[in-house]
Amino acid sequence: MSKPLILVSNDDGISAPGIRALIDVVREIGDVVVVAPDGPQSGMGHAITLNSTLRCDQIHIDDGPQTEYACSGTPVDCVKLAVSTILDRKPDLCVSGINHGSNSSINVIYSGTMSAAVEGALEGIPSVGFSLLDYSHDADFSASKEVVKSIVEKVLEEGLPKGSCLNVNIPKLPYNDIKGYKICRQADANWVEDFDERKDPTGRTYYWLTGSFQNFDKGNDTDEWALANGYVSVVPVKFDITAHETIPFLKKWEL
Amino acid sequence: MSKPLILVSNDDGISAPGIRALIDVVREIGDVVVVAPDGPQSGMGHAITLNSTLRCDQIHIDDGPQTEYACSGTPVDCVKLAVSTILDRKPDLCVSGINHGSNSSINVIYSGTMSAAVEGALEGIPSVGFSLLDYSHDADFSASKEVVKSIVEKVLEEGLPKGSCLNVNIPKLPYNDIKGYKICRQADANWVEDFDERKDPTGRTYYWLTGSFQNFDKGNDTDEWALANGYVSVVPVKFDITAHETIPFLKKWEL
Repeated sequence: MSKPLILVSNDDGISAPGIRALIDVVREIGDVVVVAPDGPQSGMGHAITLNSTLRCDQIHIDDGPQTEYACSGTPVDCVKLAVSTILDRKPDLCVSGINHGSNSSINVIYSGTMSAAVEGALEGIPSVGFSLLDYSHDADFSASKEVVKSIVEKVLEEGLPKGSCLNVNIPKLPYNDIKGYKICRQADANWVEDFDERKDPTGRTYYWLTGSFQNFDKGNDTDEWALANGYVSVVPVKFDITAHETIPFLKKWEL
Repeated sequence: MSKPLILVSNDDGISAPGIRALIDVVREIGDVVVVAPDGPQSGMGHAITLNSTLRCDQIHIDDGPQTEYACSGTPVDCVKLAVSTILDRKPDLCVSGINHGSNSSINVIYSGTMSAAVEGALEGIPSVGFSLLDYSHDADFSASKEVVKSIVEKVLEEGLPKGSCLNVNIPKLPYNDIKGYKICRQADANWVEDFDERKDPTGRTYYWLTGSFQNFDKGNDTDEWALANGYVSVVPVKFDITAHETIPFLKKWEL
């Protein structure tokens, strides 16, 4: 029986330690094609490249069996290029990450890592985004690799319902200290921005985006709760973002 | 009684005819502050600027009563900067657009116009994105202006439930030919990509993203149905993208 075809992407760029750790795991499980940004694309959300051209060149990073392409575009561009142009059949799985830093709760909508997974789901591919709660470049991905292996094997075995993908966040803990997995909902949390205003050498103002994270959600069924309590959080995510529950309210309007 | 404070943004850039039409309407209704990209940001989804600095400078485009700022960042950056730094109180309304081109069905997740509205909703502001089904620069926004006026007055009067905003798409029709408004769900539709592969003058390959739109949804309660039948589509949109219906399926997994 042929091995599953696995597409790998991320938003930290093709040379980031997180994607190298992800590739290490999945190349033991399937035939791996990597199509990932040639540089950092964090915070790119579901952006696509409309106003400029894209480059996508095959590159060689290590002596593993995978095939790799570095792309000048966003994570979503990478998945679109892979599916429509690079691969000769639809992949059996699309994985994205392992992100350096959390994509829990509201971070999911800003995350390029998760947008690659959402785009995979849109294309009808079972898709998972992985993130470790450690922003550092030299984060320890050893526990994350065990988590990736378990989730990937399960998704290949069970599939995922049409229209959804998984957002998997991993606490910054040694593997033996992780308590297990929690299937969760996205917590009601947000960033409160505090732009850092500076002057450039010519006296003109510029800003750096900074902010603090605020969790308003007291539920124990959220990703924030799971992560704070030592669990891996697994949130199913969808791309039908209709607020169905708001439709009756609006139907009462006379427009 | 003081007038409502209305924040205006878009993704086509501050000088686009669509945002000028939107400003024309809302400055008759409230005190208007415009914070919009200094150039085109279409397809930016929910992207934010993390790896570079932002510029945001007050500019003067016409002699209207509004205050205007042009920002180097994405539509989401514009809303974040407005709320945290430029405005001295939370706006009563955030409007985005009028986009040159459709943001119906799956386009909502790629749209910078809608991401500005979603970010407004995240900040707790009643928010609406407006789009006209005409991509041309010199599109006729006269019917759209009537639609904007009706929706804005209604939202200021009724508010919107926490956690949702509106995605309003307007058919390319004279105002008298528009049949009315339909409250809808996002249609199950998608783009099938077909990258245009070319060679640059040095012989290296590059790509342009192109594709064709496919509507898989036969329902008559979708935005695609409403627009095809001459109605303005009004879809409530949310930022909790948990696929709640998938949680029971995942809970059966033994991880």
